[in-house]
Amino acid sequence: MSKDKVQIFDTTLRDGEQVPGCKLDTTQKLVIAERLDNLGVDIIEAGFPISSPGDFGSVNEIAKLVKNATVCGLTRAVKKDIEVAAEALKHAKKPRIHTGIGTSDSHIKFKFNSNRDAIIERAVEAVKYAKTFVEDVEFYAEDAGRTDNDFLARVCEEVVKAGATVLNIPDTTGYCLPEEYGAKMKYLKENVKGIHKATLSCHCHNDLGLATANSIAGVINGARQIECTINGIGERAGNTSLEEVVMILRQHPSLNLYTNVNSKLLYDTSQMVSQKMGMPVQPNKAIVGSNAFAHSSGIHQDGVIKNRETYEIMDPEDVGVNESSIVLTARSGRAALAYRAKNIGYELTKLQLDIVYTEFLEFADQKKEILDEDIHQIIEASGIKIESIA
Amino acid sequence: MSKDKVQIFDTTLRDGEQVPGCKLDTTQKLVIAERLDNLGVDIIEAGFPISSPGDFGSVNEIAKLVKNATVCGLTRAVKKDIEVAAEALKHAKKPRIHTGIGTSDSHIKFKFNSNRDAIIERAVEAVKYAKTFVEDVEFYAEDAGRTDNDFLARVCEEVVKAGATVLNIPDTTGYCLPEEYGAKMKYLKENVKGIHKATLSCHCHNDLGLATANSIAGVINGARQIECTINGIGERAGNTSLEEVVMILRQHPSLNLYTNVNSKLLYDTSQMVSQKMGMPVQPNKAIVGSNAFAHSSGIHQDGVIKNRETYEIMDPEDVGVNESSIVLTARSGRAALAYRAKNIGYELTKLQLDIVYTEFLEFADQKKEILDEDIHQIIEASGIKIESIA
Repeated sequence: MSKDKVQIFDTTLRDGEQVPGCKLDTTQKLVIAERLDNLGVDIIEAGFPISSPGDFGSVNEIAKLVKNATVCGLTRAVKKDIEVAAEALKHAKKPRIHTGIGTSDSHIKFKFNSNRDAIIERAVEAVKYAKTFVEDVEFYAEDAGRTDNDFLARVCEEVVKAGATVLNIPDTTGYCLPEEYGAKMKYLKENVKGIHKATLSCHCHNDLGLATANSIAGVINGARQIECTINGIGERAGNTSLEEVVMILRQHPSLNLYTNVNSKLLYDTSQMVSQKMGMPVQPNKAIVGSNAFAHSSGIHQDGVIKNRETYEIMDPEDVGVNESSIVLTARSGRAALAYRAKNIGYELTKLQLDIVYTEFLEFADQKKEILDEDIHQIIEASGIKIESIA
Repeated sequence: MSKDKVQIFDTTLRDGEQVPGCKLDTTQKLVIAERLDNLGVDIIEAGFPISSPGDFGSVNEIAKLVKNATVCGLTRAVKKDIEVAAEALKHAKKPRIHTGIGTSDSHIKFKFNSNRDAIIERAVEAVKYAKTFVEDVEFYAEDAGRTDNDFLARVCEEVVKAGATVLNIPDTTGYCLPEEYGAKMKYLKENVKGIHKATLSCHCHNDLGLATANSIAGVINGARQIECTINGIGERAGNTSLEEVVMILRQHPSLNLYTNVNSKLLYDTSQMVSQKMGMPVQPNKAIVGSNAFAHSSGIHQDGVIKNRETYEIMDPEDVGVNESSIVLTARSGRAALAYRAKNIGYELTKLQLDIVYTEFLEFADQKKEILDEDIHQIIEASGIKIESIA
């Protein structure tokens, strides 16, 4: 069975950048956009052109710069928004306008003080208007996660008829469970007439920690685009993490799906975005956290030293991390101590190791992490006669 | 239909504390253990007593301190480990010994250089030996995520016969997809004779960002315990986040599951653990990140101001956060600016707001976030005549 491609739609510069504390200037955005292009993402959402003069300028510059990816600009279902986005994107090799409107009862009632038929009409008008500027028009049904499937299918059918090439089904509030989000995609795939003319897209938020799982449930059930950000940054608890979905599809060949992303650039890209935005990545962040490949417990270290696959499902080099590390703490066992001691030149016999290990444990109970210089000191303190041959 | 309780097994002080940089002294562990007890977790895994003298001492002190929760100590399937754990736990009101062994082919071959029958024998012996000290014995089948279901069911059946009260099914390497992990639980529920005598437990790692989703898939399919940590800290990319699974079960009443955790203490507990361990929580961490309830884009702010539920699925107060915040950035709209201006005493007319907003956008393009003092300055710079009445 040949594999299906999942398009990676990166929205670091739009949904990510609008986060408190994450604002970038145009120069910084250009550096990131170029890196995203090299990383192999299929679509770069560069900004929301009407939102501010600075954002317009950035989208415009990114459109000129990007060589391979489609460059996309966000709009509301408002004519002026669409005109401004089209203008900002005019130099893009592959421009896309992303327009849409809220479709859940909550959005229709409280945000628009409107009704379902009027919302469909606005959606269709927006897509038709965007099509007068560009061929590639993505439609978002905001709060699709809480929109009933029947009405959502109606909206999708009408905008596909109007020319939408991509249907974005956002779980705007991050509420869906994976089964539910997957079932929504399946429903649309099976019930929207003309669905073969458009690509279904997952856009998930992480309020309950489920953005990645929901996106994967989406593509298992027929979606072929995932909207995501580097490090999962984004409004509130953030968006789907690009690095997580890319590596899940890569490490689970049985899903028969692939992306165009060069995974070896993931770690560096994560670091670059974190530094430019001043947004720390927590050490236990999946794939790109500083501890993601660090082993510290005795049981795990022993296993990794004997055979890496015992505790590692990915080769750290595949995501651009040089190697997994064996960190020495009070929870480390003899095997780890022997391994690290050997790295700095001590070949300990079993008896020597027993003596040094006792010394090590007392030392380690006082200290968070044991460094190479500590090992020299521990061996000296243990009184055994051995010299480093490194 | 009455709701089923899911036991929360917190392993912050064991699987969390063994992480590089997270080491705590006994005093710090006691403060955290007391907080976990007040938070309402059902089981506190206090440490791995044989691993070091310091850990033994901490488990011993925690066992004396904790009033409500079961206190648990980790062991390998080794007699000496079990004896030491029993000794460390002797003052616990409700002691539990957690013992186990690797069951995947990779673990059996590379870690133990053994075979399936011998592994079952060791598992059964360990459980029987632990039962001579305590009634409550949890068995872990390490790397259960990569163990074939048929053999895993055999192991489970034998250890339940030997007296195990809880069966921990760890996805040790964080490789499983939610469907797969859920199916594993279902298989065990349906194929292990005597399974009604034991509780199935989810223990998931976050290497691919799926720990939370896998744990939820586990309880949907019959598990009734989740092993997790505050802030999701733990080996490599960490363990399941306690705060995420607790809030998912709370916010999804249709699952008919509940926990005993007092969600209003989640934020403070997260902060306490982060500070004591010196492990930052990233701003976009679900539930407990500093941005988890911060709204910054114009579209979202407008919606939240009109009706909170438009973009919020949880009341921030339910997790102990005082209120959601409307953060002003270049991506904010008129509604947010008017809201924040009003908070500091300016009632702007529509016309005044238009003038101030133009000034605001220019200002905001230069700055990451607009603070109250900036608003005063912007209003002054806009030249309109209005005074704060706050």
